[in-house]
Amino acid sequence: MQAPNYYAAPGFDRAALRRRDGEWLRNAAADPRSLFVPVWRSQNLVIEIDGAGPRATLLTGAAAAAIHESAVDERLSRGELVLLGLVEDRAHFALDVSALEAPLEMLRSPALEAAGIEAAPGGIDVRFADLRQLGGRLERHEGALLALARAMLFWHSRHRFCGVCGAPTRSKEAGYMRRCTDPACKAMHFPRTDPAVIMLVTDGDRALLGRNKNFPVAAMYSTLAGFVEPGEALEDAVAREVLEETAIRVAAVQYHSSQPWPFPANIMLGFYAEAATTAISLDDGELADARWFERDWLLSHEDDDTFRMPRRDSIARRLIEDWLHGRV
Amino acid sequence: MQAPNYYAAPGFDRAALRRRDGEWLRNAAADPRSLFVPVWRSQNLVIEIDGAGPRATLLTGAAAAAIHESAVDERLSRGELVLLGLVEDRAHFALDVSALEAPLEMLRSPALEAAGIEAAPGGIDVRFADLRQLGGRLERHEGALLALARAMLFWHSRHRFCGVCGAPTRSKEAGYMRRCTDPACKAMHFPRTDPAVIMLVTDGDRALLGRNKNFPVAAMYSTLAGFVEPGEALEDAVAREVLEETAIRVAAVQYHSSQPWPFPANIMLGFYAEAATTAISLDDGELADARWFERDWLLSHEDDDTFRMPRRDSIARRLIEDWLHGRV
Repeated sequence: MQAPNYYAAPGFDRAALRRRDGEWLRNAAADPRSLFVPVWRSQNLVIEIDGAGPRATLLTGAAAAAIHESAVDERLSRGELVLLGLVEDRAHFALDVSALEAPLEMLRSPALEAAGIEAAPGGIDVRFADLRQLGGRLERHEGALLALARAMLFWHSRHRFCGVCGAPTRSKEAGYMRRCTDPACKAMHFPRTDPAVIMLVTDGDRALLGRNKNFPVAAMYSTLAGFVEPGEALEDAVAREVLEETAIRVAAVQYHSSQPWPFPANIMLGFYAEAATTAISLDDGELADARWFERDWLLSHEDDDTFRMPRRDSIARRLIEDWLHGRV
Repeated sequence: MQAPNYYAAPGFDRAALRRRDGEWLRNAAADPRSLFVPVWRSQNLVIEIDGAGPRATLLTGAAAAAIHESAVDERLSRGELVLLGLVEDRAHFALDVSALEAPLEMLRSPALEAAGIEAAPGGIDVRFADLRQLGGRLERHEGALLALARAMLFWHSRHRFCGVCGAPTRSKEAGYMRRCTDPACKAMHFPRTDPAVIMLVTDGDRALLGRNKNFPVAAMYSTLAGFVEPGEALEDAVAREVLEETAIRVAAVQYHSSQPWPFPANIMLGFYAEAATTAISLDDGELADARWFERDWLLSHEDDDTFRMPRRDSIARRLIEDWLHGRV
C-alpha cells in the first residue's frame, strides 16, 4: 500500500459506536486521562521550543474544565465538545474555545504543563496557528488530529441553524449530528465534506501546471483542481475542470490517492490524466498562467522567485513527485 | 476507459461559465428552444407508453411558464429554476414545481405534447416517480439528467436558511450558490455532495456481501458502504466501515470507479479490498447478515426469495459483476 498522505490517519479509532452512548461520553469527558484539542476560530494550539518545530498541544480535562465553565452535557449539546476518537484507550475530544476573546492568556500555562515545562525560560512560543500555515511541519499523526478537530468544529459553526426552517439546531451523537429544535421540523444535519478532484495532466514527459490567481505564495505552480458537482462522477469532474481552466481535453484518467484537506472542509481526490489535446487557453479566468513543464526541468529546478512547487504536505506535490520519479 | 456508471454523464456540458451571466440566463430561460426538467418534491416526471419503459418528460418554456406564473428573475433568485447545462446548444433547466398540490393535472397535457402524442388513447402512464424506484430503466443520459435536477433542487430545499445565522438565503449563480440575505452575515453556501465509499471485500474466490437491516428489497445482499467522515482519506474510510460492520480487517484497497447517487445527495466511490482476516462479527448492528459467497455460487445463482443481487443501476452490482467476470 502507498504511504498515507499528510492529514490522513489510517487506523485511527474514531469510536463511532460510542457516539450514541451518553453515559460513556460523560464519563470519558470527565476522565482525567482524556485529552482535549483546543480550537479557537479554526486555529489550533501549538508550541515551539527553541525553534525545534511545532508540536500539537493537548489539554487535560482539568485544564479544559478550568477554561470552560459549563457542564459536560451542555458543552456536548452545544457542539463545543466533539468526540474525535481513542488513542490507546484515551478519549480525545475537540474543544471549541472560540467564545474566549483572549484564549492564550488562559491556555499558556496548561500548554506549558502539557509539554512538561515548569518555568518559561524564553525560546518558547505558544500560539494559536492556522494549520494551513504550518505546512506539514507537525508530525503526521498530530497534523491529522488537529485537522479533524478543526474540521468538526468548523462544521458546527456553519450549522447552528437549520437550513430547512431557520430554527436553532442542537448537537447530538457526540458532535456527529445536529438536529433542528423546531418540533415541526426536526431535520437532521450531518457533517459535511466537500469532494474535490485534483489532477496532474501529462503529455509524455511533460506535465501541466497552473498558477492560480489567488495562490498566496508567489510563483507557485500546481496541479489543477476543482470541486465535484452534484450528479457528477469523479472522472467527469476531472475532465470538466481541465477543460474549463485550460481548454485541454483529457483521455485516460487514473485514480492515485486521497487526502483530507480541512481548509475548510474538503477531501482531495488525486488523479493522473493523459492529455488528448495540448493547446492551452485560460478560458475561465481562474488561472493566471498554465504551462507544460518538462520532467527534466522540474527535476533540476530549485524553488526560486520564478517557480515554486506546491507545499510538501499537499497531494499536489505528491502527484508531481510520484510522476517525476516514475512511481506512477 | 471503463464504461460510465449509471447516473454519470461524461461530456455533459454544465455551462459553468454562464452561471454568472444574468442576461444570458434570462434569455436562455425565455428561449422557446430551452427545455425544463420538472421536479416535484424530489420526484421526476416520466411517461410510459404501452409498457415500453419509462422516458423522461422535458417541458418547453411555454409549458413551464404556464404552470409557473412568477417571472424568470424571481424563479432564478428563489432557486426554483436551476441551470443544468447545454445539450446541443439547448439550455436545460431544473424547474421546481413542489409548491403545486396536484402538479399532474397541469402537466399531463404538456407531457403528452412533449412526447409527441396528441390524444391520450389509454395505455399511457404519465406520473411523478421516485428515480430510485425506476432502477435504471431510463436511458442512461436521461437518468443522469433527472438525477442532476433532483439533486440540485433537493439541495435548495435544504438550504433555504443560513446555517450560520438563521436568516433566509437567496439563490445566486443560476442555482449554484445561496447567499445569506442578512447584510451582517452574507455567508455563501454551495451545493453539497456527500462522499460515500462502497467496497467489495474479497478473499480469493469469495466475496463478502451483507444484508442491511433497512434494505427495502427482501433477501438483497450487497457490498458494504458508508459515509466518508471529516478528516478521513477514502482508503481509511473503507477499512473503518468494513471493520465497524463486520469486524473484518482489510489489506490492499484498490479504487474502481465512482457513481453519482442523488438519493438524496451522494457520490459513491467504489473500491475493492482484500480481506486480511475473515471471521465475521456484526458489531455495529447495521447489518442483519453478512456472509462469504463463492464466485461459482454467485455465477450460477438466479435471484430468488433467499438471495438477490443489488439493482442493476448501482455501482454495487457493477463491482460484483466485474469481479465475477474477472474484469478487475
